Amino acid sequence: MTLQDVLARIAPASAAAMAEARDHQSRLTKPPGSLGVLEEVAVRLAGAASACPPPMPEPAALAIFAADHGVHAQGVSPWPQEVTLQMVANFLAGGAVANAFAAQVGASVTVVDVGVAADLPAADGLISRKVAYGTADLSAGPAMTVAQAVEAVETGISVAESLVSGGARCLITGDMGIANTTASAALICAFTGRDAAEVTGRGTGIDDATHARKIAVVRRALHANGIHSGEPRPEDAEGGTASSGAVHSGSALEVLAALGGFEHAAIAGFILGGAAAKVPVILDGVIAGSAALAAAALAPAAVDHCVAGHRSAEPGHTAALDHLGLRPLVDLELRLGEGTGGLLAHPMVCAAVRVMHEVATFDSAGVTEKQP
Amino acid sequence: MTLQDVLARIAPASAAAMAEARDHQSRLTKPPGSLGVLEEVAVRLAGAASACPPPMPEPAALAIFAADHGVHAQGVSPWPQEVTLQMVANFLAGGAVANAFAAQVGASVTVVDVGVAADLPAADGLISRKVAYGTADLSAGPAMTVAQAVEAVETGISVAESLVSGGARCLITGDMGIANTTASAALICAFTGRDAAEVTGRGTGIDDATHARKIAVVRRALHANGIHSGEPRPEDAEGGTASSGAVHSGSALEVLAALGGFEHAAIAGFILGGAAAKVPVILDGVIAGSAALAAAALAPAAVDHCVAGHRSAEPGHTAALDHLGLRPLVDLELRLGEGTGGLLAHPMVCAAVRVMHEVATFDSAGVTEKQP
Repeated sequence: MTLQDVLARIAPASAAAMAEARDHQSRLTKPPGSLGVLEEVAVRLAGAASACPPPMPEPAALAIFAADHGVHAQGVSPWPQEVTLQMVANFLAGGAVANAFAAQVGASVTVVDVGVAADLPAADGLISRKVAYGTADLSAGPAMTVAQAVEAVETGISVAESLVSGGARCLITGDMGIANTTASAALICAFTGRDAAEVTGRGTGIDDATHARKIAVVRRALHANGIHSGEPRPEDAEGGTASSGAVHSGSALEVLAALGGFEHAAIAGFILGGAAAKVPVILDGVIAGSAALAAAALAPAAVDHCVAGHRSAEPGHTAALDHLGLRPLVDLELRLGEGTGGLLAHPMVCAAVRVMHEVATFDSAGVTEKQP
Repeated sequence: MTLQDVLARIAPASAAAMAEARDHQSRLTKPPGSLGVLEEVAVRLAGAASACPPPMPEPAALAIFAADHGVHAQGVSPWPQEVTLQMVANFLAGGAVANAFAAQVGASVTVVDVGVAADLPAADGLISRKVAYGTADLSAGPAMTVAQAVEAVETGISVAESLVSGGARCLITGDMGIANTTASAALICAFTGRDAAEVTGRGTGIDDATHARKIAVVRRALHANGIHSGEPRPEDAEGGTASSGAVHSGSALEVLAALGGFEHAAIAGFILGGAAAKVPVILDGVIAGSAALAAAALAPAAVDHCVAGHRSAEPGHTAALDHLGLRPLVDLELRLGEGTGGLLAHPMVCAAVRVMHEVATFDSAGVTEKQP
């Protein structure tokens, strides 16, 4: 399906299904509100599916979108670029943390080469949809053309469609790409209006000098691409548009092309594809969060179909989640990516929905309700 | 096994196994520290098991200890006391949230009547070990005798032993007892030295007037039992004992008998039984947290075998976790009890350990390490 077709299909949450879900929650044999955040997860999924109870979000499918980044040449990461390729091989051999977590929660793992800077041999579990051998350096100009961005987005859409056709009832975003937290920080600046110093973190582990260089690179990227960030945020601005914190110039696709990685674009498409199919998408960390900002700019209702799996240790992730209005389920200082935080959240999302299917009501179980 | 036998068997964490686990973590194909809190969970379980990697904590067994409370007569809960009995029936019929969560994570459910104020018909999944038809009113004197406390503790021990003999490799604490957050608050005051107003929460949902009455009841309970709380905490006290925040008079068993419920005493025993068997115990919320304070007072090394499943919305739970030095894995404003928070944490605990078994090392996977 093309991007335009998918955008036309994405519907916002059903208010009726959400109301029905809240009402059902109130009749279950538990004190009202006692499941905390999980009650809202069940309500959210009912809204997204336009059904109460919502379908069980099982089985889950993780897609790890892998790509390289021209900005790696700016020295923003202590990891050599070839680690992207090596980790793809590790995923395919089942040796990464994402594999262990997926095995734990019963999720399938699909790896998508959407822009690794080397040729990859064909392998079971690998989808080869390379747009290019890595992006251009975003600190010197656009990371990719708009046509490339659309190609990567549509790759994400087609992977989502294919996994859903294969039976997946929950999609989990994953990523691999050395230097991709730099692109994420730039996207978060552009879409939320936050300053680079606020949202640029230490990724998988960098020293102070590298961190300062990374912030400078993000600033240069915004400047080189004519994107204004660090402006007053909407709540501070006189006459600002309250519904959007974006202060970028250009369309969402142009911003995504200018600053994103191929995996960011593909994850944005993966989210849109899930939303169009009414299959919930569990977002992993900061890469997914920044990609979700792009997806939300293309189709605001897509966010209704997302659950924030976890809060990454990266400061930009919290900024992205705040902008998206999402509350993360897991908050354990993970900063690995690959989809690991999303995978950990999956059993909780299932548990939240399972309550709607299996728990008795006060009436059916003969349990006395709380006295007024 | 008797309480004395179990106390003699509990060993502290193995520092060697923990060091080995940290070393192994550093060789895995992930950035150092990138699994955040979960790395420490794996290290903790290695220490508890004296083995690296620690055994997979599967399958898990939830035990829900149910009992009633004389203090219910003081009007501390909006729920009628018979809800304890009704919820036991709901657990046995598979209709409660704990059942849905246990099904989600693959845990067995055992219900133990350790002091419900009514006769229960025999049923599959029910262990009948009633100490009495509910405790006495702790606000007027001891909730139980020391002999009853020992009987309840030894019930918890025997349930742990029986579940481990049956193959459980992880124990999860559960509770059911209308008014049991009042007893928990009193125990937390006694064992941590905090003031009643600090640690007494709204349980499953009470109004301001009931909350004020509940705090007064906790204060009366401490006074009636000769237990001093609200004293300076050890870090504030001149010459205080730094290793214990307890400001109670009397032995741990006396305090447990004075202020606890039968389910608190049984959960304390369940924790001790797990620790003695070197099977990790995932603690649920504030009931388990207060019971763990008693277990820790009886055998400080027992805490090495515990993982805090979640942080309850009850303020006393945070006080208990701080005192125990435990960081909760799930923090989603749950306030249901039954073991629900512990169950949600189980897949994460498994995931943390699975990493130690299945993830490749940099050497084995041919992945280049981070540049210094």
